[in-house]
Amino acid sequence: MFSYFRKVFYHETDKMAIVHHSNYLKWMEEARVAFLEDIGMPFEEVEARGIGSPVVEINVKYKKPAAFGDEVRVDIEISKFNGIKFEVDYTILNAKTEETLTVAHSAHCFLKDGAICSIKNEAPDYYEKLMAAVK
Amino acid sequence: MFSYFRKVFYHETDKMAIVHHSNYLKWMEEARVAFLEDIGMPFEEVEARGIGSPVVEINVKYKKPAAFGDEVRVDIEISKFNGIKFEVDYTILNAKTEETLTVAHSAHCFLKDGAICSIKNEAPDYYEKLMAAVK
Amino acid sequence: MFSYFRKVFYHETDKMAIVHHSNYLKWMEEARVAFLEDIGMPFEEVEARGIGSPVVEINVKYKKPAAFGDEVRVDIEISKFNGIKFEVDYTILNAKTEETLTVAHSAHCFLKDGAICSIKNEAPDYYEKLMAAVK
Amino acid sequence: MFSYFRKVFYHETDKMAIVHHSNYLKWMEEARVAFLEDIGMPFEEVEARGIGSPVVEINVKYKKPAAFGDEVRVDIEISKFNGIKFEVDYTILNAKTEETLTVAHSAHCFLKDGAICSIKNEAPDYYEKLMAAVK
Repeated sequence: MFSYFRKVFYHETDKMAIVHHSNYLKWMEEARVAFLEDIGMPFEEVEARGIGSPVVEINVKYKKPAAFGDEVRVDIEISKFNGIKFEVDYTILNAKTEETLTVAHSAHCFLKDGAICSIKNEAPDYYEKLMAAVK
Repeated sequence: MFSYFRKVFYHETDKMAIVHHSNYLKWMEEARVAFLEDIGMPFEEVEARGIGSPVVEINVKYKKPAAFGDEVRVDIEISKFNGIKFEVDYTILNAKTEETLTVAHSAHCFLKDGAICSIKNEAPDYYEKLMAAVK
Repeated sequence: MFSYFRKVFYHETDKMAIVHHSNYLKWMEEARVAFLEDIGMPFEEVEARGIGSPVVEINVKYKKPAAFGDEVRVDIEISKFNGIKFEVDYTILNAKTEETLTVAHSAHCFLKDGAICSIKNEAPDYYEKLMAAVK
Repeated sequence: MFSYFRKVFYHETDKMAIVHHSNYLKWMEEARVAFLEDIGMPFEEVEARGIGSPVVEINVKYKKPAAFGDEVRVDIEISKFNGIKFEVDYTILNAKTEETLTVAHSAHCFLKDGAICSIKNEAPDYYEKLMAAVK
């Protein structure tokens, strides 16, 4: 499992004085990018090879809010991968208290020239790296 | 059912040249605020009465992307309400072609003084309005 | 002069319970896009012709805050244009009270194939439209 | 002088494939918060003492764009402080190449109970810290 750490930014709060719920999707993306870099698949390189990877589904359960001044930790792992679609699990915690704030899940496909592609055919090296990372 | 219309803003796009997936949560919130105003429950008034309504769950299925230059329509309705929690269904379409872009769902509770409250007890007028709006 | 109207969105507020100052730049961009469409130069068409128009300078004086529940009006006009660079003046007001919230200014150039270009040479029709719009 | 480091996030890019210009204001705020913490004046503590510090003016000159995959460095220092208003200078650079991307400036006041206050009277300890930090 990979952990991504991040301070809460002032500009991420809303008038309830907690982090606006849309920002958790941004943290999930940041954690995904850091995780992919960690397994040798930096996303700027993925894109430079003409491969995109859009989000096809998001689920987030908000349990406790994060606030300005907090540091959060995003625990991330690939839960499923079949060569076409990969699915990711996230637990977002307060880095200090280790309280769980949010539990989330996302699913992604790969695109080449605007069409869904098999990463196994398109980029076997990435296929190996992702498959090795499945929990 | 209530429909909320909205042009896509340039600042909502990302380097894939489509709307960043986190922005759909913002459109859902905007549609919710417009819907609540439509049923006589403007959210600034809800908050002025000391009642909050945080998001407890979000699910989004991304089917087709929206792009700069598009206008979107968010069809919104309350799918469930039990006096404590309410759930909302959304279909986000291209306003012109009527193609479905995204199908989404959210769940919300009510807070008074930081604790979950029964809106039936706390604000019976809002309870009536929400109950009348359940599809 | 052109006026762009816009409700304040909940997600634009921060923990001071006012609109986060970065969002005024987004409203300025939205007003610019609406203004360009109004003078027959929709920005999606500009970009489709291979012409970009990045921001080169921004100045904003924040006088009074906008809050959730407010509607704002952005009065916008081109203050200078020399065929290469255009400059834009903005006054952001509370649409109801007409109080001035923010006074702002931006400057922009045009790009073709990544290099600054003369819009007079590159797109004489746009040159005419912008020149006719200078206050 | 204080330096704040930050990777560019994917969600900060726009369809020009560069960072959207509004995000530089967010980086400036993040750098300000990190700087204030560095001089012993963490902003969550400032706010907990009932003191706010809104932005009253922003100027940004955009010279070169930042892109996804870049790391940026924000060099920040207080240029002026008179006990009422403080002004901040920023240079945003590519952390690797040290190319200057953006040169910016902001001005801020202090608020207590919604009114502009003298920080010298309101919080002499903060006054000393800020005064000592003026370049």
